Amino acid sequence: MELFFSREIDGSICRLDADESAHCVKVLRHREGDDIHVIDGEGTLYTCRILSASPKEVEAQVTGVERDWGSHPYRLRMAVCPTKNTDRYEWFAEKATELGVDVITPVIGDHSERKVFKTDRLKRILLSASKQSLKGAVPQVDEALPLRDLIRSYASVPPSYVAEGGTVLKDSTLSGEQVLKLICCCYEGEEKRVSIGELLAESQASEIVILIGPEGDFSREEVALALECGFRPVHLGPSRLRTETAALAAVAAVYFHYCGDKGM
Amino acid sequence: MELFFSREIDGSICRLDADESAHCVKVLRHREGDDIHVIDGEGTLYTCRILSASPKEVEAQVTGVERDWGSHPYRLRMAVCPTKNTDRYEWFAEKATELGVDVITPVIGDHSERKVFKTDRLKRILLSASKQSLKGAVPQVDEALPLRDLIRSYASVPPSYVAEGGTVLKDSTLSGEQVLKLICCCYEGEEKRVSIGELLAESQASEIVILIGPEGDFSREEVALALECGFRPVHLGPSRLRTETAALAAVAAVYFHYCGDKGM
Repeated sequence: MELFFSREIDGSICRLDADESAHCVKVLRHREGDDIHVIDGEGTLYTCRILSASPKEVEAQVTGVERDWGSHPYRLRMAVCPTKNTDRYEWFAEKATELGVDVITPVIGDHSERKVFKTDRLKRILLSASKQSLKGAVPQVDEALPLRDLIRSYASVPPSYVAEGGTVLKDSTLSGEQVLKLICCCYEGEEKRVSIGELLAESQASEIVILIGPEGDFSREEVALALECGFRPVHLGPSRLRTETAALAAVAAVYFHYCGDKGM
Repeated sequence: MELFFSREIDGSICRLDADESAHCVKVLRHREGDDIHVIDGEGTLYTCRILSASPKEVEAQVTGVERDWGSHPYRLRMAVCPTKNTDRYEWFAEKATELGVDVITPVIGDHSERKVFKTDRLKRILLSASKQSLKGAVPQVDEALPLRDLIRSYASVPPSYVAEGGTVLKDSTLSGEQVLKLICCCYEGEEKRVSIGELLAESQASEIVILIGPEGDFSREEVALALECGFRPVHLGPSRLRTETAALAAVAAVYFHYCGDKGM
């Protein structure tokens, strides 16, 4: 199944931009009257019939609409420190898209060697990965921001998990959705780490944010700040994983937890 | 922790080859009397004290031995069809090594576009990944072989799983170890696919072999042969995954199942 992407789907008419039109008409040789499939990158699949097939602009009539196409039953934000080698970040992001992720946020931590991270190429890779893996929604890529800013932005979001003894911890006086906030760190801090699988199993949230540190791990101050802001420290099993492998393993754990039992 | 690799550990003396010696002496500037850590690639970590530090050959006295160093509590063989782009296979293999895999077997299926697969570069990548992720054992890389030959080689190995109703299916008249034999396929064949997590949870085996098909999936004949030979058809959840992503997701599922609850 070949997918096109368009930002211009207006009522019942869909227009492809120059790149997509050229691919549609010159490479795939589509003509007037052909049916094509178009995603809007926000979760909807449109079936369209081509009205005019110029290699500069394809215009098509929308004949079918399927919302939440290729969606997953959770909302996952991965806040991952850039790797020294950008390829490694890109493959994490591509593979995470195939499995199912909603937002990728490059975050700059105390031990990050790379302090600047360009997102243009990453956005193109994720659009391509979304098409290839038949998903209507393309993951959002944020501009890089300081890790502490990201952590603090979750300070007022109530954590959602079941504490020892089975009490559901939620503060109903706070607004905001329940979010399962996790920080994957390599050492024991003040709070004992548990396995990511255990926290997922206990949680009642379907919105998750996961922090993954740089090659040199988080600083102790960053972990302390995260705990203050309601993040739970988790580990990803006994193996020593690179940043990008840890990030993808965390996405896989979430994916298998929420929808591993549903086949394609 | 910097690791060296040696095939020449004889009683109490360890010798590094020319590459490792150059790295040890020229790059890391180790000298006589320094302690270094050496893996044999078969699971053992040796602590050694350098006796002579030539950039062509380092000779060292073994002072400590740790078996099963960085090991995992399962034995996993991934039989994966080569991807069109070799990079993709290499990153799967690298990431699988970090998580934990024992044998990687490139297999050529009916729909494989790539029929030849060189393993030299892959072996070097896995040695490097094993050192980086602190594992004493380097995964074995087999020479590529026809998928049907691999499937048939498991024909007499008793499957190990619990059937519906809770009966443990094993044929004690057959010799050979219990092996959980899984084929990840994208369509329903004669036997209904279940999730990989479900079969792992039911199984009593700690030895697993998983088949992953090429871009065009397995042929129906290959799936039928695999089922005849005791493989169970599994799915990896609802997402459409590339070959290398499916392979890594399967490794992650096994890793989290067997040891996700144990922290580093």
